[in-house]
Amino acid sequence: MHAIVPFDARDPKTRLDDLLVREERRSFAQEMLQDVLETLAAVDLHPEVLSTAPVDCAYPVRVDERPLTVAVNSAFEKHCPVVVVMADLALLTPGACERLLAPEADVVIAPGLGGGTNALVVRHPEFQVDYHGVSFRDHQEQARACDAALTTVDSFRLGVDVDTVGDLLEVLVHTDRRAADWLRDAGISSQVVDGKPTVTRE
Amino acid sequence: MHAIVPFDARDPKTRLDDLLVREERRSFAQEMLQDVLETLAAVDLHPEVLSTAPVDCAYPVRVDERPLTVAVNSAFEKHCPVVVVMADLALLTPGACERLLAPEADVVIAPGLGGGTNALVVRHPEFQVDYHGVSFRDHQEQARACDAALTTVDSFRLGVDVDTVGDLLEVLVHTDRRAADWLRDAGISSQVVDGKPTVTRE
Repeated sequence: MHAIVPFDARDPKTRLDDLLVREERRSFAQEMLQDVLETLAAVDLHPEVLSTAPVDCAYPVRVDERPLTVAVNSAFEKHCPVVVVMADLALLTPGACERLLAPEADVVIAPGLGGGTNALVVRHPEFQVDYHGVSFRDHQEQARACDAALTTVDSFRLGVDVDTVGDLLEVLVHTDRRAADWLRDAGISSQVVDGKPTVTRE
Repeated sequence: MHAIVPFDARDPKTRLDDLLVREERRSFAQEMLQDVLETLAAVDLHPEVLSTAPVDCAYPVRVDERPLTVAVNSAFEKHCPVVVVMADLALLTPGACERLLAPEADVVIAPGLGGGTNALVVRHPEFQVDYHGVSFRDHQEQARACDAALTTVDSFRLGVDVDTVGDLLEVLVHTDRRAADWLRDAGISSQVVDGKPTVTRE
């Protein structure tokens, strides 16, 4: 199945700017992207990066400068069934992908922290995404509106997207791939301060 | 199977104090506790609240004023196999509990956000908890040290514990029980501000 991986190649992960300068944010975002793409390919999905600007990558890249929602809905015109997986799901594993793909519903949603939609399987030709606001709720309504059977997947690995410095702790604790290596090489680690796990940089 | 539910009845959920005064935090914490207890009972577990102070509750309560780690390890002396589930897992469902109980490993861990351990099944008499620091990692090491086979459960509903104002969004979006009702009655809701979901109070 075709898998769309939306990616901001211009100014990604701005909420990490307390810890990382822009070039570092770009570099870290690319490592996460690469981890995600390889994981998707490992379960026989065919990933295509839907990027806001050209990006150096071993997988197909389509550049679309329009807002995320418009670009994804436009890609749906070419691909159904289709999977949409965010590029910052650094905790993704083949097992989590298999759980996403297992239900046969018209629409399968993996909720993300903060009311988001981190991953979607769409097998219904009329379903459209809307990533603005509480997208998990909006996608439930959208599925009802076009009479698509919807189910959700309960996964921590699909639910954690990496946006904040606090999220980096999840990468350090729960993964051991490119993104985690990149953090360690940048001197970023988890320390216990007053009994509480904290992300620090040397 | 016996299920221990540690609960701070004195000054719970201090990180919610921007939004809730102490009595409200206590009241909200009790609603979450009640949701968790009912969910555990629904899958035929026998929950017992392990509380820092007396609490009004329809399930058995054991008061233990010692620190969390000591109190839980002490409870392990009486119960094995045993389940430990945090009282602030407001997103818990019977389905998520069943996934926790399904593996037959000596130790089953559901990781929580921030390196924590939100739920545990312990079937090994030597395994001890340590909730200080990155407990997920410590519990992995502890299992190795006592030669216990360990597995993890990948669940968003088990992974989200409610500590911060941001976490209330998860309760409002993903649940519809006592804790969510309490928040709504207190005038707390999710609003989309600049495209971003935000928790506000009237």
